[in-house]
Amino acid sequence: MAGSTFGSIFRITTWGESHGAGIGVVVDGCPAGIPLNEEIVQIYLDRRKPGQGNFTTSRKESDQVHILSGVFEGKTSGTPISMVIRNENQRSGDYSYLADCYRPGHADFTYDMKYGFRDYRGGGRSSGRETAARVAGGAVAMEFLKMLGISFTSYVHSIGPIVCDPAHFDKEEIFKNEARMPDPLAAEKASAYLAEMKARMDSVGGTVRCIAHHVPVGLGDPVFDKLDANLGKAIFSIGGVKAVEIGEGIHAAELTGSQNNDPFIPGEAGTAKATNHAGGVLGGISNGSDLVITASFKPAPSIGQEQMTVNQAGEPVTLAIHGRHDPTIVSRAVAVVEAMTALTIADALLLNMSAQAEKVKEFYKR
Amino acid sequence: MAGSTFGSIFRITTWGESHGAGIGVVVDGCPAGIPLNEEIVQIYLDRRKPGQGNFTTSRKESDQVHILSGVFEGKTSGTPISMVIRNENQRSGDYSYLADCYRPGHADFTYDMKYGFRDYRGGGRSSGRETAARVAGGAVAMEFLKMLGISFTSYVHSIGPIVCDPAHFDKEEIFKNEARMPDPLAAEKASAYLAEMKARMDSVGGTVRCIAHHVPVGLGDPVFDKLDANLGKAIFSIGGVKAVEIGEGIHAAELTGSQNNDPFIPGEAGTAKATNHAGGVLGGISNGSDLVITASFKPAPSIGQEQMTVNQAGEPVTLAIHGRHDPTIVSRAVAVVEAMTALTIADALLLNMSAQAEKVKEFYKR
Amino acid sequence: MAGSTFGSIFRITTWGESHGAGIGVVVDGCPAGIPLNEEIVQIYLDRRKPGQGNFTTSRKESDQVHILSGVFEGKTSGTPISMVIRNENQRSGDYSYLADCYRPGHADFTYDMKYGFRDYRGGGRSSGRETAARVAGGAVAMEFLKMLGISFTSYVHSIGPIVCDPAHFDKEEIFKNEARMPDPLAAEKASAYLAEMKARMDSVGGTVRCIAHHVPVGLGDPVFDKLDANLGKAIFSIGGVKAVEIGEGIHAAELTGSQNNDPFIPGEAGTAKATNHAGGVLGGISNGSDLVITASFKPAPSIGQEQMTVNQAGEPVTLAIHGRHDPTIVSRAVAVVEAMTALTIADALLLNMSAQAEKVKEFYKR
Amino acid sequence: MAGSTFGSIFRITTWGESHGAGIGVVVDGCPAGIPLNEEIVQIYLDRRKPGQGNFTTSRKESDQVHILSGVFEGKTSGTPISMVIRNENQRSGDYSYLADCYRPGHADFTYDMKYGFRDYRGGGRSSGRETAARVAGGAVAMEFLKMLGISFTSYVHSIGPIVCDPAHFDKEEIFKNEARMPDPLAAEKASAYLAEMKARMDSVGGTVRCIAHHVPVGLGDPVFDKLDANLGKAIFSIGGVKAVEIGEGIHAAELTGSQNNDPFIPGEAGTAKATNHAGGVLGGISNGSDLVITASFKPAPSIGQEQMTVNQAGEPVTLAIHGRHDPTIVSRAVAVVEAMTALTIADALLLNMSAQAEKVKEFYKR
Repeated sequence: MAGSTFGSIFRITTWGESHGAGIGVVVDGCPAGIPLNEEIVQIYLDRRKPGQGNFTTSRKESDQVHILSGVFEGKTSGTPISMVIRNENQRSGDYSYLADCYRPGHADFTYDMKYGFRDYRGGGRSSGRETAARVAGGAVAMEFLKMLGISFTSYVHSIGPIVCDPAHFDKEEIFKNEARMPDPLAAEKASAYLAEMKARMDSVGGTVRCIAHHVPVGLGDPVFDKLDANLGKAIFSIGGVKAVEIGEGIHAAELTGSQNNDPFIPGEAGTAKATNHAGGVLGGISNGSDLVITASFKPAPSIGQEQMTVNQAGEPVTLAIHGRHDPTIVSRAVAVVEAMTALTIADALLLNMSAQAEKVKEFYKR
Repeated sequence: MAGSTFGSIFRITTWGESHGAGIGVVVDGCPAGIPLNEEIVQIYLDRRKPGQGNFTTSRKESDQVHILSGVFEGKTSGTPISMVIRNENQRSGDYSYLADCYRPGHADFTYDMKYGFRDYRGGGRSSGRETAARVAGGAVAMEFLKMLGISFTSYVHSIGPIVCDPAHFDKEEIFKNEARMPDPLAAEKASAYLAEMKARMDSVGGTVRCIAHHVPVGLGDPVFDKLDANLGKAIFSIGGVKAVEIGEGIHAAELTGSQNNDPFIPGEAGTAKATNHAGGVLGGISNGSDLVITASFKPAPSIGQEQMTVNQAGEPVTLAIHGRHDPTIVSRAVAVVEAMTALTIADALLLNMSAQAEKVKEFYKR
Repeated sequence: MAGSTFGSIFRITTWGESHGAGIGVVVDGCPAGIPLNEEIVQIYLDRRKPGQGNFTTSRKESDQVHILSGVFEGKTSGTPISMVIRNENQRSGDYSYLADCYRPGHADFTYDMKYGFRDYRGGGRSSGRETAARVAGGAVAMEFLKMLGISFTSYVHSIGPIVCDPAHFDKEEIFKNEARMPDPLAAEKASAYLAEMKARMDSVGGTVRCIAHHVPVGLGDPVFDKLDANLGKAIFSIGGVKAVEIGEGIHAAELTGSQNNDPFIPGEAGTAKATNHAGGVLGGISNGSDLVITASFKPAPSIGQEQMTVNQAGEPVTLAIHGRHDPTIVSRAVAVVEAMTALTIADALLLNMSAQAEKVKEFYKR
Repeated sequence: MAGSTFGSIFRITTWGESHGAGIGVVVDGCPAGIPLNEEIVQIYLDRRKPGQGNFTTSRKESDQVHILSGVFEGKTSGTPISMVIRNENQRSGDYSYLADCYRPGHADFTYDMKYGFRDYRGGGRSSGRETAARVAGGAVAMEFLKMLGISFTSYVHSIGPIVCDPAHFDKEEIFKNEARMPDPLAAEKASAYLAEMKARMDSVGGTVRCIAHHVPVGLGDPVFDKLDANLGKAIFSIGGVKAVEIGEGIHAAELTGSQNNDPFIPGEAGTAKATNHAGGVLGGISNGSDLVITASFKPAPSIGQEQMTVNQAGEPVTLAIHGRHDPTIVSRAVAVVEAMTALTIADALLLNMSAQAEKVKEFYKR
């Protein structure tokens, strides 16, 4: 049952429901000596906070993080870092009409069947709110990776039918628009499209892309713990993800070997390649090229439109979900996809240190 | 480094290189009392064996499995099941010209960087041969799931540009053609297309779909160990997979909530739904609908065409990979995708037994 | 590095230092439906709280637990249970004189070497205070085991040279004296002995025994995850434990097979035995007899006497540790040993449900 | 159920029953570049082989190891090392009279209850034979530790009432006598004592001590994965162990703090201590002193004397176990205790590399 822990050495455990006292994360196995404080973590959390425009809900959460342990004199101390974000502004009364009925596309039915009952307030544990805890944990991983020179470019690649044009890619634009798109034209179109969705009380899906730069060669293990396998799990563990692609992704299925192979370029052996169809991984191991992951999100299942569904007795029920809903979750998900990618890389970095006996010997000699 | 073990309760550990003494698998945590013998496992192994036509290589491996432990009087005994498949017909001499150079699209470079050196014979541990051990382990999971009434439909959905037409779907056809396609027309076209690929000494990608029927409701855990997250890892751990999709997959990103939500149908509460865009999972937990997974494979990187690459010194090398190569790996991969799916479900089945305290109490009462 | 998580299905993760904001625990993998609230957990915590007599320190901690998640309408919901105990009454200033020197018998030196620096206030993570989080987590396990009819008898068996006399064993006495001894005479002697220790500004070790009754047959796995192996780890993970014994313990080394074998008594096959030298485990699996574990604790290393030691530069330092110290930790440790035993049994109970394929089949039929 | 895997990074998985085709081990997560071949592993295996004298049985097993994978050109390649030892000289027919009855002190009853049936031939999975696989796996760890300068002194400390006298300790003697005792006088007495035991068709317990020298400071993690906690699990997982002690062990319970604290000696900070009551661990972390572990083994339960027991129906049965039995298992267990200790240290060594962010940074810079 567990399932609230991610990672093998660098590990996070999240807890909390959308309508309890709060949510939180324990980061265990974090190396000592990483500069960290609440202000740093808050920067990452603020990136996934609801905005004001067409993209997100009006639930006002300050999402203020508190660090309760694991930091001493401004640095991680090697012991578990416990962080809490108190829930505010929760109105449990709003949800009583959902206690007995199963929202389509939600986990209501599956939770009831699995556990015998469920916390029906706002999605309980399966609420998107849980991802704030991931972002707080991911912030620690991000700061660690920053020390090693690894950086990220993460953005919304598409919202419904609106797709960013690579020709218009401008990294600087990503945080200038609420869509989190690197193509300002696409962002504008997306805003208009989402306004239309809101008017129709509907929602729409989209895709998020995360690129990690300067990942050392050698991360990931052959066979089951391939870097891309662990990334696949990391990204699929985010609610609403229905597809994960590495590099060429589904397009690789249509290419020939002569098209898809990335030719090595003479020079420093192996590091330079003419293309990056592989998306930074060969044989499950990072190859020095940019790591490129794309996640496809389904439309948020909470829509204002009337829907036909059933109650716990299996009887037909007409349901209109109250409140204001995010017409899309992808803009908020950018920070989450990045956090999960960073956590996966941090874990792989630490695991890879034991790959060569001579390097272990050298490590212990000094 | 590890990485050769998959699963948390129902677990397999594989070992072996393409050119060592053999390959094998240890299945640990398998419930006692499942009928099993070498003939049963062999049936599954034979499904991934090279055929004779346009689809696969001519390497003749009988892939005969030997069970060394864990079975007593025709049933699993609850102790680890060790299975070995001896390597035959290996010609190590063939590979010496690869020792110093990096094949594009292969793991040669990444292994050298990670471990300091590599077994350069036939891909070593990253060879597709390793997947035979997964299929042997998966066979045990398949037999276990069969006891519980869970069954599978697995097939090649596309090869390069040739896609099966759902209108022509016929499950009976899958094992009648070497393409492993449920659409006999597509299979014929694929055969012709692959003949062309072989003539051009090239390869091509494709997609494999696996559908699990009658999966109990409740499998998978919220948050990180979602059923789809563990499936994502399972499938991405297969060499050459560049995308994994659940249900609608990437198409979900273009749908609206009102299109994508699967309406519950009155009757027995929650089990019947009008559609299955979700692909059998809600909130990371199986919902009683068919579980639908699609894997996109890249074209096999071993092609007969001359390719430009580099050696360990970073100097340019012209490379033509000897031997006959599979023009596509997807037909052989069907059994592997199915095995990994079965292993993931078997593990989730056992884990889910502890979800409700009252059910645990009842279990121990009898 | 991690190391703050215990258990494979029923799992706790603890966090917190003695002088940070607080300490806490996340219980993950706990079955849904166990009655739980803060009052229940508080009962367990109060059992390890400092008393007023000769046995414990004067640090006044109310150790009030707060449940932040995982409980809905008075029952565990199957999602992680996060509990926090705020630190009170901490005086960091007291500890500055320890920042640069290594207390004998403490983890100061090893932390500095491992992490590069340490939180020198009150032992940081290695403080006995961390065990309160274990007791809070263990309380959930205890309540779960209670549902299944499993109960415990836990007590101090000896303090220094004062050993309980089995002839005087009276379970009712355990919580009537501060020593937590089932032999009131021994408890009295121990109190006098400890008064002497306090006067000499010294401390003393002792032993704790934990007996679990009505443990179902079949818990534990052959080979590495033997029930006694996991208990061994659980108990050795408590600070200050230098020996763990199961059943006869060290005395088994002096017995002959004819003395040590527990003869089965005719009747219901196998459940009744004439003796219990084994302490409830055969082949790593519970055998239906009482589970008997004994832990030997070293004397607390914090003593008021002057001690010779070194500082970080290796120079000699004379150290007298300030404050009042527990002359023994065993009386407080009773609740901790019980908690760790309960957590181990709870985990083994859930894992054992997958031992037989027919029982799994039956479970999913209903 | 699993339970056949030990270790988190450096990991072994064992398989095999005493009367199947063979036994074996898969070593996963082993660093690349350790010199290894079958001859090297055989040396370790030969140390636990039955001798000819009063100490062991006459079962003639050559215990010849075969390495099937993971070694390339005389060095570990970083991929899983699979090793097999074929069973020889097994006479299954001998055991049929045991199929229906429960031997006292054996796992017959618990296996039947857990799994529904058991492989009754020679103890099946719980046979001491399984430990040969541990020794083969441990051999790889030993060779790895040797590269880092870590060495071992392992021996029988007592057999029944015969205890080695520290004043007569001579490391050179250990492999000169079949008792594996460092005190030749004690060895002689033990031989006579065991002859008496054999005559009485009885068995006797004993203790094994393992000392690891030059273990780096810093191994082990605070809280649950303390080095001593993982050692405790490792040693308790060996069949027949009823007590594990670290350093002073049970004697620590009788000492005062002023007696038991190990004073630091000025000089290189912290590495030198006047005594080693702690047995090399402080706060769960290695402190640079010798690591000292003592294991108490119960007498082997297989004795030739007639014993009263029950059959599966609970009816009384008189049992005399056929064949010749080891009067003690401790002499053979020395190699097993050492192997488990080495595996635990190897794992802790690799995990500890991620303790400090600056060291990780430095590692990836080169």
